[in-house]
Amino acid sequence: MTPLRIGLLGIGTVGGGTYDVLTRNLEEITRRVGRPLVITRVADLDTDLAKSATGGSAEVTDDAFAVTRDPEIDIVIELIGGYGIARELVLDAIANGKHVVTANKALLAVHGNEIFTAANDRGVVVAFEAAVGGGIPIIKALREGLVANRIEWIAGIVNGTTNFILSEMRDRGVSFADALADAQAKGYAEADPTFDIEGVDAAHKLSLMAAMAFGVPVYFEDVYTEGITAIEGVDIRYAERLGYRLKLLAVTIRREAGIELRVHPCLVPEDVLIANVEGVMNAVLVQADAVGPTLYYGAGAGSQPTASAVIADLVDVARLISADPGERVPHLAFQADQLSDTPVLPMDDVQTSYYLRMRLADEPGVLADVTRIFADESISIDAALQQEPGKELAADFVVLTHMTTERAVRAAIAAIESLPTTHSDVVLLRMEKLS
Amino acid sequence: MTPLRIGLLGIGTVGGGTYDVLTRNLEEITRRVGRPLVITRVADLDTDLAKSATGGSAEVTDDAFAVTRDPEIDIVIELIGGYGIARELVLDAIANGKHVVTANKALLAVHGNEIFTAANDRGVVVAFEAAVGGGIPIIKALREGLVANRIEWIAGIVNGTTNFILSEMRDRGVSFADALADAQAKGYAEADPTFDIEGVDAAHKLSLMAAMAFGVPVYFEDVYTEGITAIEGVDIRYAERLGYRLKLLAVTIRREAGIELRVHPCLVPEDVLIANVEGVMNAVLVQADAVGPTLYYGAGAGSQPTASAVIADLVDVARLISADPGERVPHLAFQADQLSDTPVLPMDDVQTSYYLRMRLADEPGVLADVTRIFADESISIDAALQQEPGKELAADFVVLTHMTTERAVRAAIAAIESLPTTHSDVVLLRMEKLS
Repeated sequence: MTPLRIGLLGIGTVGGGTYDVLTRNLEEITRRVGRPLVITRVADLDTDLAKSATGGSAEVTDDAFAVTRDPEIDIVIELIGGYGIARELVLDAIANGKHVVTANKALLAVHGNEIFTAANDRGVVVAFEAAVGGGIPIIKALREGLVANRIEWIAGIVNGTTNFILSEMRDRGVSFADALADAQAKGYAEADPTFDIEGVDAAHKLSLMAAMAFGVPVYFEDVYTEGITAIEGVDIRYAERLGYRLKLLAVTIRREAGIELRVHPCLVPEDVLIANVEGVMNAVLVQADAVGPTLYYGAGAGSQPTASAVIADLVDVARLISADPGERVPHLAFQADQLSDTPVLPMDDVQTSYYLRMRLADEPGVLADVTRIFADESISIDAALQQEPGKELAADFVVLTHMTTERAVRAAIAAIESLPTTHSDVVLLRMEKLS
Repeated sequence: MTPLRIGLLGIGTVGGGTYDVLTRNLEEITRRVGRPLVITRVADLDTDLAKSATGGSAEVTDDAFAVTRDPEIDIVIELIGGYGIARELVLDAIANGKHVVTANKALLAVHGNEIFTAANDRGVVVAFEAAVGGGIPIIKALREGLVANRIEWIAGIVNGTTNFILSEMRDRGVSFADALADAQAKGYAEADPTFDIEGVDAAHKLSLMAAMAFGVPVYFEDVYTEGITAIEGVDIRYAERLGYRLKLLAVTIRREAGIELRVHPCLVPEDVLIANVEGVMNAVLVQADAVGPTLYYGAGAGSQPTASAVIADLVDVARLISADPGERVPHLAFQADQLSDTPVLPMDDVQTSYYLRMRLADEPGVLADVTRIFADESISIDAALQQEPGKELAADFVVLTHMTTERAVRAAIAAIESLPTTHSDVVLLRMEKLS
């Protein structure tokens, strides 16, 4: 199939990430999509940066309108940000019949109703998965995955900067000011953090989610918005004593009389999943009538996570261009002629960590024998637990291993079970650190 | 637009749920899709059940092949289950040029390669969102949301029965046998629970997820499968002392030499989100190179959650039928002419719970005055916390309220702040129970 020709406006953090991910994963993405996605033109005021970022593989210009008006371009990616020139460029791209992909939540929260109307009138798509929840496919979930449902409410942690600050205040007992300074030092907060810490960024995202949940226009102006600048450590500690965590939540609820739209610090019970979303991570909890609660968790910002969402949008748009069966989402995600016959590893070759429980005689030298067996199989021990022996003069001994192979562990177990001082079979459970 | 005509095979738990949700939410779904979805024919051996479930609105037959061969039908939903007649019916529907929607993971795990090939050859779609993770849109996430990524590994809790049993064993200290009996009494486990407790159901789902993640065929035969029947409470307790929870995990990892595919009980650190997925809920954690970790959580089974996924598939298939812009996913989820102007409620009318912190004089009658104010505003108190007074002869008093309105709370705060015995402004934080 012919390649899809893409014009990229802005090659900063997210634009650079998009270029990198698309280049790095081009083969894998093409195996999935069937049609190559190629960034053929890049516009950035810093043309030197753009030239070095693209390594000469795309045509670089400092005139973004030259891209939105280029008849050779199928899709325009807007990653400039803000409400000013970005709005003009998006509207110009639409007017020129281009599909648009953008990560610009501020633009869509403030001018979304105008932009979507213009796109509908011109028959093009403005895709914005990256505008909410970074790399989490939450817009796809709301618009497509939950399409059968009457959505009842949404509660989200949709700003990583503020979640990081609140996590730091709780974990390290630091003040808001110190946590903010730390976030800035780590690159999680902008030099001017106002939009994040005052809740404006979360309100942008909430207004888009509420529109998709309830079938209303984008009501950004009507969002009650309260940030975290006034939060004191004492309230985080009292909340914790009462069984709650403090989060900056974006909440929208369908009531009989209308909808609630609000962003503010909020206590949530410590045993609900979203209360345990820490650091810069985001999560959105959606309550819907048929499916019940569903939660979507992941990185809400950052170069490559946001690029993941931008590229997902590019692929969705690419698939709209014809109704040809070859343009559909493949059954197993990859084009049918692109499946590989990668072998499934036999269990002996699996690498993981292990929990092993055994009952050992309470005699001198027994632990030395067992640990020697682990050493002989090159298995290193992460933690151990010994239960006091009961009347039987034998005690439970539990070992957690570091990463090893199933083969080595099976060999160690056979050796341990053959010791006369071992009074039970060895119980094996596997262990995954998941990070 | 012309309605989409759907034939439903099997009106048991999921079929009945699909019919119910589609009927109940027809208006909302049509506002989203633009084209009505109508179940026009239902096949079930129990025609009386089918007639009563559909209330005469669909034509009922006991001959499922009459539906798969009906030229008036656009899409066939297969909800019969099993490998036998279901396979024949799906292949017959495909041969007759119908798109198919199915929740049948066993069928696709065992015969998926044959079925997907037949569908590709005939140019139709077999959609199966409901086959993995019930109502969680995990297949959409893997195939579309994460399309930009090289997926590195997946770890999922994809069987609610076994997760419920392990949660019960941990929380209540009961044996496997007792927890299983409890699950059966609650309807969370089948009379013959073998496929669940032996890990086979999870292996079905894992083989489908691995295919979508890594671009390989469905390798169900090669999944290492170990269930939870041998799990002893002592290991759950030792694991907990070491900081771990025990879950039945479905794991697939891309290694250099091949892929790991395994279902088995597994220790996971207690502070990772998936370790805190309890009861019948499911969650899938996906590690991918650009976006990093993302997690998808929700009900993995049940009539209406599964129906949610079946209907999402129907809508996806409906949107494939033409490349007309009217068939696209609408920008804000609902068709542009279907947005409503539901009002946004003013903050005074918002209903939620509150955390209020105040500094009160340590004198007789002070608490009585404050609690009287709450009572006057019809605010009931959920919990309270009083800090010992320091040198100042005043103490922090923290109140958690039950659900009330912001208006009532603001009035109460004004009254409390006007008391001479109140030594501070009242700090207000909102609280959401999220359940």
